[in-house]
Amino acid sequence: MKVGILGGGQLGWMTVLEGRKLGHEFYVLDKSPNSPAARVADGWYPPNRAREFSDRCNVITYEFEHIDENVLSSLGKDTTPPLEVLRLKKSRILEKRFLLYHGYPVAPFEVLRTRELTQLELRKTLVAKAQSLGYDGKGQYVIESPEDLKPLLENHGPDEEFLVEEFVDFSAEVSLIGVRDYEGRVEMYPVSFNYHREGILLYNYAPYDTPLESRLKDIVSRLMEDLKVVGLLAVEFFITKEGEPLVNEFAPRPHNTGHYTLDGAYTSQFENLLRAITGLPLGSTDLKLPTGMVNLLGVSLEDFDVKELLSLPGVKLYWYGKEKRPKRKLGHVNVCGKSVEEVKEKMEVVLKSIYGEAYLGVE
Amino acid sequence: MKVGILGGGQLGWMTVLEGRKLGHEFYVLDKSPNSPAARVADGWYPPNRAREFSDRCNVITYEFEHIDENVLSSLGKDTTPPLEVLRLKKSRILEKRFLLYHGYPVAPFEVLRTRELTQLELRKTLVAKAQSLGYDGKGQYVIESPEDLKPLLENHGPDEEFLVEEFVDFSAEVSLIGVRDYEGRVEMYPVSFNYHREGILLYNYAPYDTPLESRLKDIVSRLMEDLKVVGLLAVEFFITKEGEPLVNEFAPRPHNTGHYTLDGAYTSQFENLLRAITGLPLGSTDLKLPTGMVNLLGVSLEDFDVKELLSLPGVKLYWYGKEKRPKRKLGHVNVCGKSVEEVKEKMEVVLKSIYGEAYLGVE
Repeated sequence: MKVGILGGGQLGWMTVLEGRKLGHEFYVLDKSPNSPAARVADGWYPPNRAREFSDRCNVITYEFEHIDENVLSSLGKDTTPPLEVLRLKKSRILEKRFLLYHGYPVAPFEVLRTRELTQLELRKTLVAKAQSLGYDGKGQYVIESPEDLKPLLENHGPDEEFLVEEFVDFSAEVSLIGVRDYEGRVEMYPVSFNYHREGILLYNYAPYDTPLESRLKDIVSRLMEDLKVVGLLAVEFFITKEGEPLVNEFAPRPHNTGHYTLDGAYTSQFENLLRAITGLPLGSTDLKLPTGMVNLLGVSLEDFDVKELLSLPGVKLYWYGKEKRPKRKLGHVNVCGKSVEEVKEKMEVVLKSIYGEAYLGVE
Repeated sequence: MKVGILGGGQLGWMTVLEGRKLGHEFYVLDKSPNSPAARVADGWYPPNRAREFSDRCNVITYEFEHIDENVLSSLGKDTTPPLEVLRLKKSRILEKRFLLYHGYPVAPFEVLRTRELTQLELRKTLVAKAQSLGYDGKGQYVIESPEDLKPLLENHGPDEEFLVEEFVDFSAEVSLIGVRDYEGRVEMYPVSFNYHREGILLYNYAPYDTPLESRLKDIVSRLMEDLKVVGLLAVEFFITKEGEPLVNEFAPRPHNTGHYTLDGAYTSQFENLLRAITGLPLGSTDLKLPTGMVNLLGVSLEDFDVKELLSLPGVKLYWYGKEKRPKRKLGHVNVCGKSVEEVKEKMEVVLKSIYGEAYLGVE
């Protein structure tokens, strides 16, 4: 089957590499022929040849949400998951409203413009999230005092809209990734524990034991149905101090918190995406053994001791071949172990090996 | 690092796919730009551009033994493992003599020409193996009566040399794959049980419990040293009815009986080959869980029910994208399970699903 992927980043790269074994062909639409996914695909198309790309492919999926509307409308056919979900994801405000009005638990929020933000009387810590480009902590501001508004005012016009939430003092951040086929059958990976630093995922591991598991699974299952997702849906949750789950956001594509499935699960999230959208039976989402993931953020292979890292048993490197930029996701490391405790111990060593003493202990 | 691979078959294909994550670049030398490995590499070179290929690469390995001597000599530098080992593998006679004169246990053999074979008085069942093209049962003849010489006489000239062995009525065929780095450090995968049909591997699984394990490991370890292998060495053994190991043959490259490591081991044989030859620490060869492999021989994806196959939990398809020919290795299926018993049960289902009632029970 000819599979088209909108976006040429590492999520597409891993999708292509995992999908080769199924015998599919892959075509990638991206600005750059040197993007990770384009380099390993059977063909690359620039955005201005979207229709040609679309005509070539039997099914089109996406690995990146911020694709130009002109490109989407010139495809001439729907994607899998549907374009509607992608459009929802282009705005944090639309996404949060969808969740609220469909009865999902979310933190209280309001929509305010930049100039309205400056007039607030601050009694509580707020988080202001710009409507668009909502990934990896971009356009996201924690506001405790009027001082904190400065960078926001520098980066955004007076009429720009923000999703403004009360800062959630959560006890844990977790995520759950589900996969759904054309017949509505659903499989779910275990809950993973996620640790973010400055809005960017630093590490995660699974399985994470929580009494909320069945409630979270119900939420993800219902959301996949509400969104008519065929393929993957990753949902990020905050668990409040009171033990209640709040949906933070969802992603209708392979998710950074599912990279561990490449080594930890019977079937990776990437293979399951492809099985779902090409009409093959879903693969088992069971774990072979506990596994964690550490992101390589803004560090190149010259910045740390790769040999030291790879000498740790059960450590696997995934290097995306991207240009180095501060905080950019340039690769990740998967860490397998016989127990969650062993995985966490190894992840401590990995974090120290990559980031030196600046690393943070594994929770 | 720029890694060159001599040969463009599925072994190279899996090496490239597994090696992408390490950040290496891959160049493949093969007659065809459409060979599996060439299709996923960064560059393809035809045999007449061997020197250019060689100049481009930091390290050269091979995935196929029967590479033209002109190509090898025009590389202008050695390969890893060394060319000497590859040259040994071009002749079953040289290979067996090497084993004999270095003190490895082998079945009694003799070297005879075609016309000498016709003059034998047959008292025992013999196996005559043509000197070259020794893979997948090619050029291999079981001779019980003068009748059995007919196909041999049709295919070979009167002066061609054969390795003639007494037919070993073995109790099991097993293999062991080791990996060795530049410092001489060695890691070994578990022993696998292998089942061949008509000289071609049909299925295998690991771990295979045998009291011979440490003896086999000693043999493989010593052989890697004797051959000065950096990279992989797979050794196939017959276990005689008396419980003695005989070395059948070795392969200084990824081996069909190691494909299960892609899903069963902490580190696949392909990744470990690349770690070894690019100077990275060897990865753990421990198993995550018992795993088996079933070859897709001469059957295309239209010849069996792929959906039925993939609906079995823990089953992974690897489709090489090669043209269908009788008995040709066109793909394989990996099967993971919680126990060896579970793996064997699943493999029975897989064999039946692929080959119908003609399948043979799993031993």
